[in-house]
Amino acid sequence: MSQRHAQLPQNSPAPPALDPADGALLDAARACVMAVGMKRTTLTDVARRAGVSRMTVYRRFPDVEALLQALMTREFLSVLGDVVRTDGGNARERLARGAGRGVMALSEHPLFNRLMDVDPELLLPYAFHRYGAFQRAVLSAFGGIIRQGIAEGSIREEDPELLAVALELMLRGPVLAARTEEVTAEREAICAQLVALIDGGLKP
Amino acid sequence: MSQRHAQLPQNSPAPPALDPADGALLDAARACVMAVGMKRTTLTDVARRAGVSRMTVYRRFPDVEALLQALMTREFLSVLGDVVRTDGGNARERLARGAGRGVMALSEHPLFNRLMDVDPELLLPYAFHRYGAFQRAVLSAFGGIIRQGIAEGSIREEDPELLAVALELMLRGPVLAARTEEVTAEREAICAQLVALIDGGLKP
Repeated sequence: MSQRHAQLPQNSPAPPALDPADGALLDAARACVMAVGMKRTTLTDVARRAGVSRMTVYRRFPDVEALLQALMTREFLSVLGDVVRTDGGNARERLARGAGRGVMALSEHPLFNRLMDVDPELLLPYAFHRYGAFQRAVLSAFGGIIRQGIAEGSIREEDPELLAVALELMLRGPVLAARTEEVTAEREAICAQLVALIDGGLKP
Repeated sequence: MSQRHAQLPQNSPAPPALDPADGALLDAARACVMAVGMKRTTLTDVARRAGVSRMTVYRRFPDVEALLQALMTREFLSVLGDVVRTDGGNARERLARGAGRGVMALSEHPLFNRLMDVDPELLLPYAFHRYGAFQRAVLSAFGGIIRQGIAEGSIREEDPELLAVALELMLRGPVLAARTEEVTAEREAICAQLVALIDGGLKP
């Protein structure tokens, strides 16, 4: 087993249980969202773009909301997957760097940007009222890396779950503000500051 | 001059330029918002509750939006005023502690909670798209304390404005998520983590 895989947190998010055919439906849904936004995307549009019948879509997803939910989860988990694979350094350094890369990657994610421009109110429940599947996956990934860091002595002893919650919350603001002009203009410099804050803030 | 005042950042937000009579109008507006929410508050309601004519209100505020804007600015700046007056310790410790207290105070602020429950979409522009007067005041206050900390050697050398932006962004998530069940339940513990992250993250 390579060093790289050995460094993955043990409870990194499992890939969503998707049928291979779902991938094509989600790709079609993504194209629809990029074209007309999320609220204006219908299940009929997705079926047409995927070249399948509406019944085929309904066999896999109960409604367009579930389909779009699965799309967002797939897209954002793929960012998380890239980020937690950050190589090199101890767990604290990997977590700090990964957090900065994650904020950058989400801020520049085409689907996220489309959502912010066309249907920002759809993100409101996740910012204000409840955790979504993506945020829970982030908490789980952070928790795993934090436990590694505490075990190896690179992160101060602390309740790993609580620290993961605090870190996830502190990274939300910069991601949600990705379209604020002053934040867009300084994105890399701001992310570098976040990396330094996390790295310093987690030191034993 | 007392130690307490000497510790105030030099560019702490000036009190909003309000006529003494405005205070009564803002108090009336606050009562209206607490009763029916922000979107359902009208200028006529405010005038009636303040016991003045609509013309009297119009002489001070061009419309109900400007009046409610002034109300929010007054309320949230008052939280900021309390927070930056945190006594004792060096600038880094005061900033970290003040940030934790600020997140607590805003999260539990009656007007903020009313807004989150009744008209959360009104906060969306400030979370996603632009800085408001309150956020600019926070940046200015943070910048002042950070410059003090760098000068006295308690905060690592860094662009104070950029660091202020990163800190303000990292505190937004926890405030906006104040009504998320898991966050509400652990608020004090989460704020303690934020204080420790900021304190450690700013060390030279």
